[in-house]
Amino acid sequence: MLFASLLKQLVRVGTVEVIDADGRTHQASGAPGTTVTLRLHDRKLHRRLFWTPRLAVGEAYMDGTLTIERGTLYDFIDLVAINEELGGAPPLMRVVDGFSWLWRRLAQSNDPRRARHNAAHHYDLSGRLYELFLDSDRQYSCAYFEGERDDLERAQLRKKQHIARKLLLAPGQRILDIGSGWGGLALTLAASADVDVLGITLSTEQQAAATRRAEAAGLAHRVRFELRDYRDLGGTFDRIVSVGMFEHVGLPNYGRFFEQIRTLLKPDGIALLHSIGRADGPGITNPWLRKYIFPGGYSPALSEVMPAVEAARLFVTDIEILRLHYARTLAAWRARFNANRVAIAELYDERFCRMWEFYLIGSEIAFRRQGHMVWQMQMAREVGVVPLTRDYVYERDDAALDVVSTASAA
Amino acid sequence: MLFASLLKQLVRVGTVEVIDADGRTHQASGAPGTTVTLRLHDRKLHRRLFWTPRLAVGEAYMDGTLTIERGTLYDFIDLVAINEELGGAPPLMRVVDGFSWLWRRLAQSNDPRRARHNAAHHYDLSGRLYELFLDSDRQYSCAYFEGERDDLERAQLRKKQHIARKLLLAPGQRILDIGSGWGGLALTLAASADVDVLGITLSTEQQAAATRRAEAAGLAHRVRFELRDYRDLGGTFDRIVSVGMFEHVGLPNYGRFFEQIRTLLKPDGIALLHSIGRADGPGITNPWLRKYIFPGGYSPALSEVMPAVEAARLFVTDIEILRLHYARTLAAWRARFNANRVAIAELYDERFCRMWEFYLIGSEIAFRRQGHMVWQMQMAREVGVVPLTRDYVYERDDAALDVVSTASAA
Repeated sequence: MLFASLLKQLVRVGTVEVIDADGRTHQASGAPGTTVTLRLHDRKLHRRLFWTPRLAVGEAYMDGTLTIERGTLYDFIDLVAINEELGGAPPLMRVVDGFSWLWRRLAQSNDPRRARHNAAHHYDLSGRLYELFLDSDRQYSCAYFEGERDDLERAQLRKKQHIARKLLLAPGQRILDIGSGWGGLALTLAASADVDVLGITLSTEQQAAATRRAEAAGLAHRVRFELRDYRDLGGTFDRIVSVGMFEHVGLPNYGRFFEQIRTLLKPDGIALLHSIGRADGPGITNPWLRKYIFPGGYSPALSEVMPAVEAARLFVTDIEILRLHYARTLAAWRARFNANRVAIAELYDERFCRMWEFYLIGSEIAFRRQGHMVWQMQMAREVGVVPLTRDYVYERDDAALDVVSTASAA
Repeated sequence: MLFASLLKQLVRVGTVEVIDADGRTHQASGAPGTTVTLRLHDRKLHRRLFWTPRLAVGEAYMDGTLTIERGTLYDFIDLVAINEELGGAPPLMRVVDGFSWLWRRLAQSNDPRRARHNAAHHYDLSGRLYELFLDSDRQYSCAYFEGERDDLERAQLRKKQHIARKLLLAPGQRILDIGSGWGGLALTLAASADVDVLGITLSTEQQAAATRRAEAAGLAHRVRFELRDYRDLGGTFDRIVSVGMFEHVGLPNYGRFFEQIRTLLKPDGIALLHSIGRADGPGITNPWLRKYIFPGGYSPALSEVMPAVEAARLFVTDIEILRLHYARTLAAWRARFNANRVAIAELYDERFCRMWEFYLIGSEIAFRRQGHMVWQMQMAREVGVVPLTRDYVYERDDAALDVVSTASAA
């Protein structure tokens, strides 16, 4: 079976056993390590898993035509990642990756119509789903864990506080939040720093939910959410923040994106961009993730972002790298997801649950082992608008965390 | 006069008056601002200043064929920078810059023989000179000012402490300091953190002086200084630090440099690189600076550095941007230089003093107005060797500063 030959090339540590659709067992084994047994329930997989493993493994798992007999899905994906780390992907997988690379610019063109469609694909899913695996504020991005004891709820509060500090807010400022999600960050900033916030999103679900929250919190006079593309925006802002949206911008649009940030930012303004990236250089979006989870999505390396920042004459003033924070965030999401799995299966179906499970596990391992990280980039147009040292980010005030907490998204 | 026509294109604010070698006065004037009057004492300058202003202004000032009749050299360079900021350089200057760009790879080839020659050019100058304008530890790189009250001495101590924190030192570790200068950082790390340090430099003067200091401080068993190119080094190190040396590596060698960092770094190691850079994207080294001060030198944009970091599979874990810190450092150096000018003129001559003055002023203004900055890049080979948050850099312990101070370089 072709798939077994691929595994034999890959496995240097641990054991992957495959029981094929004809009931025959194939084994790929290396140095002592985890053992995982897969069972294939469809003979078509014997070739498909060989030719397009990065797409087909996820699809077969979703469809239930690939099941795990021994070990867990986490064990399996982790074992593949460990072996890729050790020896690199087998030559064939690299050929396929190389080929996909040619398509990535095309796949990320993300013109405004496509961008709306892509956003709807993911963020217009039922609000109830997000409620069942995110924190109470529906922060759908990397949390910030101060220590071992922080739970997801607290770490998401800290993330918002951390970002607020980096924005150096002052009362009366006008803030733009690009990709405002369910409004948690915008509401937090308005409530804690007495600023006006315009949040923009391409998801009708998110815009409606966020607007309801602003009203419920009595903040509708300070915080507005609009269904808008960042390219369509005018005016100027004291601060611009964007968390977990840049992944959807697409490589061909980086120049345009940063030009727009500069145009919208007042001369003494500060911008903070928070995005998933790759520490190991330019790569490709996993084709399964692109097809099922984030069409048009891409995690850029800093080498791909910096030229556009510099060309837009934005001065980078700080870059923080968060890495295991996102692995912990994803693990916490998965724990909540699993605890609510029955409810989520009722909302969608088992196939959807397996898809989401594959997504959360694959992403967690990408942060633990595959060079994925989050970068927070602070930018300004002028020298001296940011303090001399980064001390202002680290002045401890844990009491503020409790004040900062706003009405839950539920 | 051609030079006057160039100034007319440039000046949008302030006034530059030029009294040419024939005694005629030319004026370029814009919106209200500083007025500077230059006097030219050689008719050759009338054309030379037009065709190669970036080189010829500095040369004429050194030679005394260009003097400042009204205002100061600082006022003049600052006024040029302000006007370049406002309108960009006049078209001709840009043509010349563009042309120079073609040469920059060549000018930065910096093979080992050339690298030694370049280092000797600057760092083999009399130790007495550096003593007369640097702090007592001869820290010849950007200091770290915590507040308005920090003087140069304290800010250089803080810089070393800041770097030591980012290196997460533990007793017994083996540290490599690439470009160890007069040994201040290496000695500080060894004395304060109980580690062994190998410092390498290409300057015979620096190596000899640093070795004498290690002996005088009773640290010769822990700290060694060698006359070595980074490319010739073997072995592995727990930590690698390099402060103010990367500017001499040269664009064509970045790949090799980071490959070597990775090779020399233990798997759980941490590297910290501190270098001048440009926030405004790739540029060219000012030709006067390249000819008189730093042959082969270059301040890279992050977009030029990141591809090499990623290709070497080094994970960037933090990037701090220091900017006005270097402007303050250079201002402090200049104040000390001016206070000791008589002694320095005795050591060299008046022309040398004017050269150094031009260098210190030009550099300060580059940080204040022309997009120059310092980046401190922390890198690792593995996830998780760096703590989750950057808190460890910001745990205040001012008392440590006094302990950290080692024997002066004098």
